[in-house]
Amino acid sequence: MNGTLYGVGLGPGDPELITRKAARLIEAARVIAYPTLAGAESFARAIAADLIPGTAREIVMDIPMTQAREPAQAAYDRGAAEIADALAAGEDVVCLCEGDPFFYGSFMYLHARLATRFAVEVVPGVSSLTACAARAGLPLAARNERLTVLPGPLPEAELTARIEGAESVAVLKVGRHLPKLRAVIDRLGLLDRAVYVERATLVDERVCPLADAPENAPYFSMILLTKGADPWL
Amino acid sequence: MNGTLYGVGLGPGDPELITRKAARLIEAARVIAYPTLAGAESFARAIAADLIPGTAREIVMDIPMTQAREPAQAAYDRGAAEIADALAAGEDVVCLCEGDPFFYGSFMYLHARLATRFAVEVVPGVSSLTACAARAGLPLAARNERLTVLPGPLPEAELTARIEGAESVAVLKVGRHLPKLRAVIDRLGLLDRAVYVERATLVDERVCPLADAPENAPYFSMILLTKGADPWL
Repeated sequence: MNGTLYGVGLGPGDPELITRKAARLIEAARVIAYPTLAGAESFARAIAADLIPGTAREIVMDIPMTQAREPAQAAYDRGAAEIADALAAGEDVVCLCEGDPFFYGSFMYLHARLATRFAVEVVPGVSSLTACAARAGLPLAARNERLTVLPGPLPEAELTARIEGAESVAVLKVGRHLPKLRAVIDRLGLLDRAVYVERATLVDERVCPLADAPENAPYFSMILLTKGADPWL
Repeated sequence: MNGTLYGVGLGPGDPELITRKAARLIEAARVIAYPTLAGAESFARAIAADLIPGTAREIVMDIPMTQAREPAQAAYDRGAAEIADALAAGEDVVCLCEGDPFFYGSFMYLHARLATRFAVEVVPGVSSLTACAARAGLPLAARNERLTVLPGPLPEAELTARIEGAESVAVLKVGRHLPKLRAVIDRLGLLDRAVYVERATLVDERVCPLADAPENAPYFSMILLTKGADPWL
């Protein structure tokens, strides 16, 4: 009898934003899996640290930083193989995922490798999208408004066209793309409506107008550009 | 000393998908507020029912069903006034919100009326967007993919243009617009890639190909149209 793989969303960083279901699964886990990025401390593990049983076996997937397919995908191959061994031995495996597993999350790589052979349950989590909106005090969208989510690394011309044609916009993965994004938004005349949110819900969170944002933004940062003036308000 | 208004996201429906922070706030609440739609049972209250103290005072905002601004906004005026009275008397108020408060949520109407006068904290929740993706086993977006969120009531021509120009798409508030949406997606040649999710995470949840979806979809339904074939997989 094979075990089940749980892909568990942990929310944006505040451990209190873990769902009760995720907390229950982690507290009962005998095998935990999570990614680390190029040997750094695992953010996912840090969010869930207080819940992880001292007796749990931990499968660490060290993912190299890369823009290309390899060697990152080889690391997911190795992680999936180790998880598959545990599942085949009848163990459930709880995979810790920052934010939500299927919202720009790397869990999709494990899902693609394992869901055809094993039972996989995805437990959704609070995404960075709504966490940033909450911390900025900015409703993302209402009624019949459209919402566009754009990754910051997209080329300048595409960002310009997409932002120009959008209503509410969230730009993820701002990081080192901040100067480019700010220039695009400024040229579109939208700078005074753009808000910058960094490390939402963590102790060193920062929320400010995009105009005041630092040049060196961390990876976990977002720009929100919402309609603001709802015609019903 | 005024109280604080908490806008608390409850997630998509499964009470276990309430965050630990939301659960803590509700369990300690002396005053709870929530909307009902045209006198029906409150979905938000039903999600949180097991957590609400028997001693809590409940402020019920009965919102009439309407396509126009009125009389719904007058109902929010009355609800905001009642909440303001409690806050001014020094009571904290916990407002229960389906899903996430700022993701197509009506909490924005209370936020707009009260955040200038009182302390308001928004507690993000698991949104229907990621809950539907989890239940359908479909990653929403990865790496540099764009994600477009469209409300089902939009006009047919706009839906066609927006879906055609998008990568991953989520269509919310499907409901009675299902036949129109299915026709649009079919004409774009995308019907075999579209998945329908109804009442995600509830006991009567339904997940099926859009081609097989019922003509009479409930309000809490979604169509997911994702790229599917990630070039890295």
